[in-house]
Amino acid sequence: MDSAAPPARRRSRRERRPSSPGATTRYRNLTNPFQPAEVLSADQVESIHAAALTLLADIGIRVLLPEARSILADAGAIVDETEEMVRFDPGLVEESLRSAPSSFRIVSRWGERDVTLGDTSVVFVPVSGPPFATDLDRGRRAGTLDDFEDFLKLFQSYDIIHSLGPAVEPQDIPLEARHLRMTLSQIQLSDKVPFVYSRGRAQVADCLEMVRIAAGVDEETFVTQPRAWSVINTNSPRQIDLPMGEGLIDFARAGQVLVITPFTLAGAMAPVSLAGALTLQHAEALAGITLAQVVRSGSPVVYGAFTSNVDMRSGAPAFGTPEAYKAAIASGQLARHIGVPWRSSGVNTSNVPDAQSAYETMMNTFGALQGGAHMIIHAAGWLESGLSASFEKLVLDVDVLQMVAESWQPIDTSDTEIALDAIAGVDPGGHFFGTAHTLERYRSAFYEPLLFDRSNHEQWKEAGSPQAMERANQLWKQVLAAYEPPPLDAAIAAELADFVDRRIAEGGALPRS
Amino acid sequence: MDSAAPPARRRSRRERRPSSPGATTRYRNLTNPFQPAEVLSADQVESIHAAALTLLADIGIRVLLPEARSILADAGAIVDETEEMVRFDPGLVEESLRSAPSSFRIVSRWGERDVTLGDTSVVFVPVSGPPFATDLDRGRRAGTLDDFEDFLKLFQSYDIIHSLGPAVEPQDIPLEARHLRMTLSQIQLSDKVPFVYSRGRAQVADCLEMVRIAAGVDEETFVTQPRAWSVINTNSPRQIDLPMGEGLIDFARAGQVLVITPFTLAGAMAPVSLAGALTLQHAEALAGITLAQVVRSGSPVVYGAFTSNVDMRSGAPAFGTPEAYKAAIASGQLARHIGVPWRSSGVNTSNVPDAQSAYETMMNTFGALQGGAHMIIHAAGWLESGLSASFEKLVLDVDVLQMVAESWQPIDTSDTEIALDAIAGVDPGGHFFGTAHTLERYRSAFYEPLLFDRSNHEQWKEAGSPQAMERANQLWKQVLAAYEPPPLDAAIAAELADFVDRRIAEGGALPRS
Repeated sequence: MDSAAPPARRRSRRERRPSSPGATTRYRNLTNPFQPAEVLSADQVESIHAAALTLLADIGIRVLLPEARSILADAGAIVDETEEMVRFDPGLVEESLRSAPSSFRIVSRWGERDVTLGDTSVVFVPVSGPPFATDLDRGRRAGTLDDFEDFLKLFQSYDIIHSLGPAVEPQDIPLEARHLRMTLSQIQLSDKVPFVYSRGRAQVADCLEMVRIAAGVDEETFVTQPRAWSVINTNSPRQIDLPMGEGLIDFARAGQVLVITPFTLAGAMAPVSLAGALTLQHAEALAGITLAQVVRSGSPVVYGAFTSNVDMRSGAPAFGTPEAYKAAIASGQLARHIGVPWRSSGVNTSNVPDAQSAYETMMNTFGALQGGAHMIIHAAGWLESGLSASFEKLVLDVDVLQMVAESWQPIDTSDTEIALDAIAGVDPGGHFFGTAHTLERYRSAFYEPLLFDRSNHEQWKEAGSPQAMERANQLWKQVLAAYEPPPLDAAIAAELADFVDRRIAEGGALPRS
Repeated sequence: MDSAAPPARRRSRRERRPSSPGATTRYRNLTNPFQPAEVLSADQVESIHAAALTLLADIGIRVLLPEARSILADAGAIVDETEEMVRFDPGLVEESLRSAPSSFRIVSRWGERDVTLGDTSVVFVPVSGPPFATDLDRGRRAGTLDDFEDFLKLFQSYDIIHSLGPAVEPQDIPLEARHLRMTLSQIQLSDKVPFVYSRGRAQVADCLEMVRIAAGVDEETFVTQPRAWSVINTNSPRQIDLPMGEGLIDFARAGQVLVITPFTLAGAMAPVSLAGALTLQHAEALAGITLAQVVRSGSPVVYGAFTSNVDMRSGAPAFGTPEAYKAAIASGQLARHIGVPWRSSGVNTSNVPDAQSAYETMMNTFGALQGGAHMIIHAAGWLESGLSASFEKLVLDVDVLQMVAESWQPIDTSDTEIALDAIAGVDPGGHFFGTAHTLERYRSAFYEPLLFDRSNHEQWKEAGSPQAMERANQLWKQVLAAYEPPPLDAAIAAELADFVDRRIAEGGALPRS
């Protein structure tokens, strides 16, 4: 399925798009040039898939929302109302998988920030959801709306960030109004695809209505195209909580994107064995996908793979581990087996944007990329096992993600690039610095880092021996200072403001608990 | 070619090997489980190979050593003595490639630290050659023999370090004695495969004689098995300097390993275009391989790929770049095309073991590993574009390399690991912490990092908010304090000491300039 808008519609939106002559589009619409790596044999993939189907049929998933149980019962699942337990017939699951699209597009406001999920596409999503914000100047503190908006401005500033994510929890905004303010900020500060939390029916309805208003489309049109996305976390093991059940139903009905992500931490909420954790992940994801497809056949869903493990000394979650690396690659195989796009992560455990945070992030991100992940969430700015969103880590990761994108550019082996003439023109032991071949190409030959330092030891000492995180601290403040919001139609802006004012006056909506 | 010692010989050596009950051998003899990634089409590989052959035939390589020119002329190369230029017939190159082994083994003192190069093997070699040593306590200073020996002790302490490398230049030892002391320290402090610099005929003869004495074999036996290795750096573009010509001849004659590594820095000593830099790298490597094979058919050679690029703002070398990442993968394709093992690197530009150094190292190391590199030099401890060997970076990298090795362990998908019974035994929304399935496995289920910190924010602050490099500083000192040298036969030790004393009394040997 490709949810492109009808050509006429898209052209009319394009007319309103801002001219941005200096903006690069180099890092949009990335595709991964490599064949996905594999850690499981075909038989092993089949074993895990079969075990997950057995789990769903015999052991079952507890679904707390009565409406969800009722929908699944109507579709043929065996429901035990006393235990709130749903057992899925393998045929029902397989039928749902057939209707789930293998790729689709999430449409952005101007059509320029559309996001494709599936095939060989790669979508980088920034840090999403930590309670704390942190930076070198102010340290670690509870996130505020100011922090949330500063992160949005940074997300908007870099093309390598393909979609918005809920950077940090704006804890200074009352719970009943928070979803409204978060959605409003996303629409005001960025033209990239927004994220909506599944925190209950009323909140989701508010947020999707705002996304619809921002898109300038009627309700009938809205459900035909994905324009927003949410994450559904199962309560591993084997439980779908109330707001998550509602989210699965409401996003599916609205034709919006569900990233269904079991939180299978091996050794804690999942078996200590990686095969067990993957089986549980697979079963829970299949349960969520099945509910979404039963609600609306063809709903855009993403297989969310988040399997990592605990630290066995402390029992605390650990990220960027070797176990998570191979679990990511295995997850890619499981997702391809069922034919839906899959998400992975770029996460780490470190308390500070130091070498450890970078090693762990790279371990996780390269596992995701080697495994052919379509969507990498927390790809920039996540710190401290997800408790903090770091401004310095954000721009460090952006620099590295841009390098990844550069490394995917093909090598030109035309005669002028192989350059035998240029080679013949330089004496043995000489150099190519001033040659015509170099001068014609050097400005664009190599990636120029945003903040990676290539000064020599003396220059570096003279500059005060800065570490990468200190240079990052300078950079994000400069980028924030230079930020400019994307255009927003005045009538739409007014309609959104009215909507938010009215809903807050009405008392907003508390999260579903 | 597999240079295994005859079984009888190896058994007799084994008898003398020390018992080391607590030592893990988990990280020895690693194999890369993934199919090598590709960035070039088959046609592009052929284009670069053909262009390199054209370069060798028409443009030529300047070979400064008269003996090397004479050997190549005898083999059919066209030699211009006035310009010291050698032009290689493609047939001569192709014939040499047929005699170069696609894989071989470097034999270690006890047979337990043997190193296989080729097929799917992966060999991690630590930092090799910087002039400066650096650590958080003493800062950056000229390397000394103490530093050199401390690095050797650390190399010996970790199984993930598979071969020795010349950690740091011991600048306090006079030039004429330095090679003797470096070789003696390697043999005394480690039973892993030693490195010998190609700094001229006399020095190489001394060092290989010491390796022979340490092996306890006669000269006839010595040449039948690789026991030491050297790096040959061409003086890019297109020049083989005097000591390098001697090294190519002497190591080939002695049956020892040559890692032939052009220093093709795109934009400086090589064309600014990546295809041009790779073509020059390929041609220079082929020239070195050809000389080695002409000297002794079947000589163990390694294709050394080191193509990176300059920073275009400063002209300084840059490492861990996206260009180097894809050049590494392309180099793997070129090496497989000619059928010899290949080396890559884990290098970085940063002045300090911070996030940048880690991102860059991972970029380079993952390029090497995705490309199927057999030998990764500077895989641990390299800093500052190779000007410094860092004690903290060494143990940080060791931790990460161990994680890489762990990530290569296969996933067990037997029924007890898929663990449906264990999953059925935990209530929905519960946890697996105390279950029998967890208790039976948790001690060995996950990698436990050497120094990566998984404490929570409060614990971390209480500990003084340490960064990874500070924890690394503690670790390497602990490991040094616990170091114990491997056994060395007393007669051999005495013979080596006598040899070194005698050669120093004779005036040693200066490097060839």
